[in-house]
Amino acid sequence: MAASLRPEVPPMRLSQFHLHTSKETPAEAEIVSHKLMLKAGMIRKLAAGLYTWSPLGLRVLRKVERAVREEMNAAGAIEVLMPSVQPKELWEETGRWEKFGGQLLKIQDRKEAWYCYGPTHEEVITDFARNELASYKQLPVNFYQIQTKFRDEIRPRFGVMRAREFLMKDSYSFHLTDEDLGLEYRNMYDTYGRIFTRLGLKFRAVAADSGAIGGAVSHEFHVLADSGEDAIAFSSGSDYAANIELAEAVSPGARPAAQEGMRKIDTPTQKTCEDVAALMGIALQRTVKSVALMGVDTEGGKTDEGSQFVLALVRGDHVVNEIKLSKLAGLGEYRLATEEEIDQHLGSEPGFLGPVAPKKAIRVVADRSVAAMADFVVGANEKGFHLAGVNWGRDLPEPHDVADIRNVVEGDASPDGHGTLGIARGIEVGHVFQLGRKYAEAMKLTVLDANGKAATPAMGCYGIGVSRIVAAAIEQNHDDNGIAWPEAMAPWNAVVCVINPKNDAAVAEAALALYAELNAAGVETALDDRGLRPGAMFADIELIGIPHRIVVSERGLAAGSFEYRHRLASEAENLDRAAVFARLAPKP
Amino acid sequence: MAASLRPEVPPMRLSQFHLHTSKETPAEAEIVSHKLMLKAGMIRKLAAGLYTWSPLGLRVLRKVERAVREEMNAAGAIEVLMPSVQPKELWEETGRWEKFGGQLLKIQDRKEAWYCYGPTHEEVITDFARNELASYKQLPVNFYQIQTKFRDEIRPRFGVMRAREFLMKDSYSFHLTDEDLGLEYRNMYDTYGRIFTRLGLKFRAVAADSGAIGGAVSHEFHVLADSGEDAIAFSSGSDYAANIELAEAVSPGARPAAQEGMRKIDTPTQKTCEDVAALMGIALQRTVKSVALMGVDTEGGKTDEGSQFVLALVRGDHVVNEIKLSKLAGLGEYRLATEEEIDQHLGSEPGFLGPVAPKKAIRVVADRSVAAMADFVVGANEKGFHLAGVNWGRDLPEPHDVADIRNVVEGDASPDGHGTLGIARGIEVGHVFQLGRKYAEAMKLTVLDANGKAATPAMGCYGIGVSRIVAAAIEQNHDDNGIAWPEAMAPWNAVVCVINPKNDAAVAEAALALYAELNAAGVETALDDRGLRPGAMFADIELIGIPHRIVVSERGLAAGSFEYRHRLASEAENLDRAAVFARLAPKP
Repeated sequence: MAASLRPEVPPMRLSQFHLHTSKETPAEAEIVSHKLMLKAGMIRKLAAGLYTWSPLGLRVLRKVERAVREEMNAAGAIEVLMPSVQPKELWEETGRWEKFGGQLLKIQDRKEAWYCYGPTHEEVITDFARNELASYKQLPVNFYQIQTKFRDEIRPRFGVMRAREFLMKDSYSFHLTDEDLGLEYRNMYDTYGRIFTRLGLKFRAVAADSGAIGGAVSHEFHVLADSGEDAIAFSSGSDYAANIELAEAVSPGARPAAQEGMRKIDTPTQKTCEDVAALMGIALQRTVKSVALMGVDTEGGKTDEGSQFVLALVRGDHVVNEIKLSKLAGLGEYRLATEEEIDQHLGSEPGFLGPVAPKKAIRVVADRSVAAMADFVVGANEKGFHLAGVNWGRDLPEPHDVADIRNVVEGDASPDGHGTLGIARGIEVGHVFQLGRKYAEAMKLTVLDANGKAATPAMGCYGIGVSRIVAAAIEQNHDDNGIAWPEAMAPWNAVVCVINPKNDAAVAEAALALYAELNAAGVETALDDRGLRPGAMFADIELIGIPHRIVVSERGLAAGSFEYRHRLASEAENLDRAAVFARLAPKP
Repeated sequence: MAASLRPEVPPMRLSQFHLHTSKETPAEAEIVSHKLMLKAGMIRKLAAGLYTWSPLGLRVLRKVERAVREEMNAAGAIEVLMPSVQPKELWEETGRWEKFGGQLLKIQDRKEAWYCYGPTHEEVITDFARNELASYKQLPVNFYQIQTKFRDEIRPRFGVMRAREFLMKDSYSFHLTDEDLGLEYRNMYDTYGRIFTRLGLKFRAVAADSGAIGGAVSHEFHVLADSGEDAIAFSSGSDYAANIELAEAVSPGARPAAQEGMRKIDTPTQKTCEDVAALMGIALQRTVKSVALMGVDTEGGKTDEGSQFVLALVRGDHVVNEIKLSKLAGLGEYRLATEEEIDQHLGSEPGFLGPVAPKKAIRVVADRSVAAMADFVVGANEKGFHLAGVNWGRDLPEPHDVADIRNVVEGDASPDGHGTLGIARGIEVGHVFQLGRKYAEAMKLTVLDANGKAATPAMGCYGIGVSRIVAAAIEQNHDDNGIAWPEAMAPWNAVVCVINPKNDAAVAEAALALYAELNAAGVETALDDRGLRPGAMFADIELIGIPHRIVVSERGLAAGSFEYRHRLASEAENLDRAAVFARLAPKP
């Protein structure tokens, strides 16, 4: 047993590296990245949402961190390091001490002063800026940090995908004019593209709703993966991409002329569009779904009952988009109507609702697709019946509102006029915002402009979930045998596997030499000299996802070749030394 | 105004770097490193003990971090990253949830579970180890991390020297045998020496009291600086060095024969040894100081009064060492005696105490030096009087205990027998401990040994205050004009200063070329193209401590020379291009 701890530098011999894989699939892990990170021994759980990064996991995390840092530096951003613990007073200046909600981990120190563990740093950077920035000559400037954050998730899960403590790159830019902010926003947008491209990830930048952080313009960056939480609409014919919550469903063509007369259909148990279409033997696209809503009067003003009740109509194959609905007048906040309210306004019960002949005058909001329909099918406001051959202007008045109130679907025309939309699933790993002057105004940050007058700078903020990228990359790059890292994120790019190192000195020596030469040639290479049986060794190497595997064996040496296999190749090849280097060594 | 943010990479043109110095000396800063870090704009205070590292400060911090990481890797330690937030349950396993005291920042999450912001990671790493380590074959192993810690200092001060949130390298090693622990302890001891040497710091490794963290053997690493909080004794003739609290005061020679008779001296107002010696016209070394103590009975057992009252004697020029005293039987805990207790046992009031003829039988503890004295002076236990010519065995009994109970002083013999001791002041920046099995036992960490039996590993732990090193280096390396960084810690090694860049294109161009060539030659060089007047520019450069300054001016260009000045040189020199490179470029 070797008692001394002075191996070569850096430690890339796996016999001296703490690699600790597991054959069992951990029961608590719901998603593949969480399972594989536990099986590969990249992380270990300390408590809910708190993970230790093992030596193997940290190697990957640092690759991501380094790529982010180098690209941020190249983009002209300047690195700082702010405290993780932040005083309550700053958060009160922006009103977020209360508003941020339960995710804010509040802390009381020994003097009973309140702090929080920073989930984000708008307040701290704005405080820093109001001390550091005095003149427009110091602008534009973009400060960034790579730092541990904490969000007290109510249900932490999915390993580091939704951990409570996580590593984040956050940056904040300051500008005299909106135009300058726009330029830097574009710079960061492009930089994020370079970061994810460099990391070897398939991703999309999508227009996003900016949510709670505020500001007018924002984009999310998503790593594409079937398991992604978010749906993204993207064009087949252009760069257009948007979160499905925001993607516009464009107006269809003109409404065709009515061909049928309105008639009552007997639908005793058919309460959904799908069931009615099946019964009638027609396409789902010819049916219309009616959703009964109550606008909530949040202003405290007086509104009559009729204007509160709204019947929203979307095509049978479409889904109502709540964010789009909430942008309509009177629907800033709304809820589903109760059965009693539905009966009161329509004289019907759920399952048979429709816009034709309601009990009271009601407001009808039709999706653009519905407004362009003729001869459609709706509920009859009578239990057990639907109406077919319905037409606007003849059987019921034109809708009060025609608006885009649905999610786009695969095959919709792209809103930019080029191509049609596809839908992909993505994992959000980055977000860029134009914050405008919200924080600067709240915290009274000003600089002197060229005329010596105090001016409030415009701000941008730009985040990347560094630890989350590791999990997202696995969701995108894995197979049944484990992880398949993109080159830029792999803990090592290559591994030299030694068969039987203890009993075969010649093999061990040849492997050691190849390992050293590959590293000298700039290929970050590990040496698997642990002495495992080949099957166990190869399973480990596939599980932890090393892109290139080279096996040194007695038989290979005799034939003057090494067995080479790419992580994603179906078979191994026998290559001589020169061919191995041609395959692996970076081009000069 | 340049609105775009895409300068060259990395940003080393000061016009594009956020440098923000200040002429004012901040009133709140008590020590020179804190003052200079604020003036240079390296840090900015967010709240008590919480500092943001500016771009300039962070460059220095990262230099330290990198040196530590590279040397730890070279020493065979393996990097991990543990959560900063730690669950209470782990700290209860070791009993430290209560014992650690007020420095432990306790946090309650939204589910009302208790956590702390980790001030150290013994519990977490031992928990990690009991999950990761199963066999002696995985040992020895040394895990380290470089991570943000929090200690809720009751009085945070001195900037990052005693901040609450700080950056630390902590590592923890695991071993089957004590012998292996000893080997790795030595490895870390040597590694720490390499780190501080590489950083260009004058330091000493000293034997230390291991305090609250526990374990038997420990050393502190101190950066030497006159302003240091800790006193270190070191030998002139060997490597011996120890915290003054621990350095042994060796036995003096044999006691000389008595020469004088005991006599009473009139000392009406002389209550200190200094005053008495001055009055008598004798050396302070001939007087003896009496300190009256009460041993505190912590066991709850019965102790008679006489054994509780202790009179401790040290030479008039010596200082009692509380740690040494507390190692004596019955003095594990003690306090100063009250005036009433003194009167009760000695029949005297403070200022005139002595061991001769006490009112009651008392225990007398004499320092080794005192036990070796003859014809000495002590208080007479009578107000206004001292006794001179006092001798052991004749005027009073031999002392009950003779022990080393004083601090060493300059000129004492070194306890290793080589040379004499000097005293230096230092700032503790590193600490290595042999923890033994304390944590492993408390947390039930075992591995299987070669015989398949469960064995409890021995542990070592090794800390470096990464952010503290930055402040300590300044305490050691500064002058009236500012910081004078050692090369390895400088934000840049050199700066090219441009005189009048806007009005003189040839000068600006020559400076840019020199700056680019120096960087290409491996000299990390900044370009001061801010367009400041020379006086203000040079003051900034001296304040922030860049080792090498090269000035490009119209006059210099005409003469084919650059003005070169080392940060610590008293004058500038004119050097041609080749001479500049010879001075600055690292030898190949």
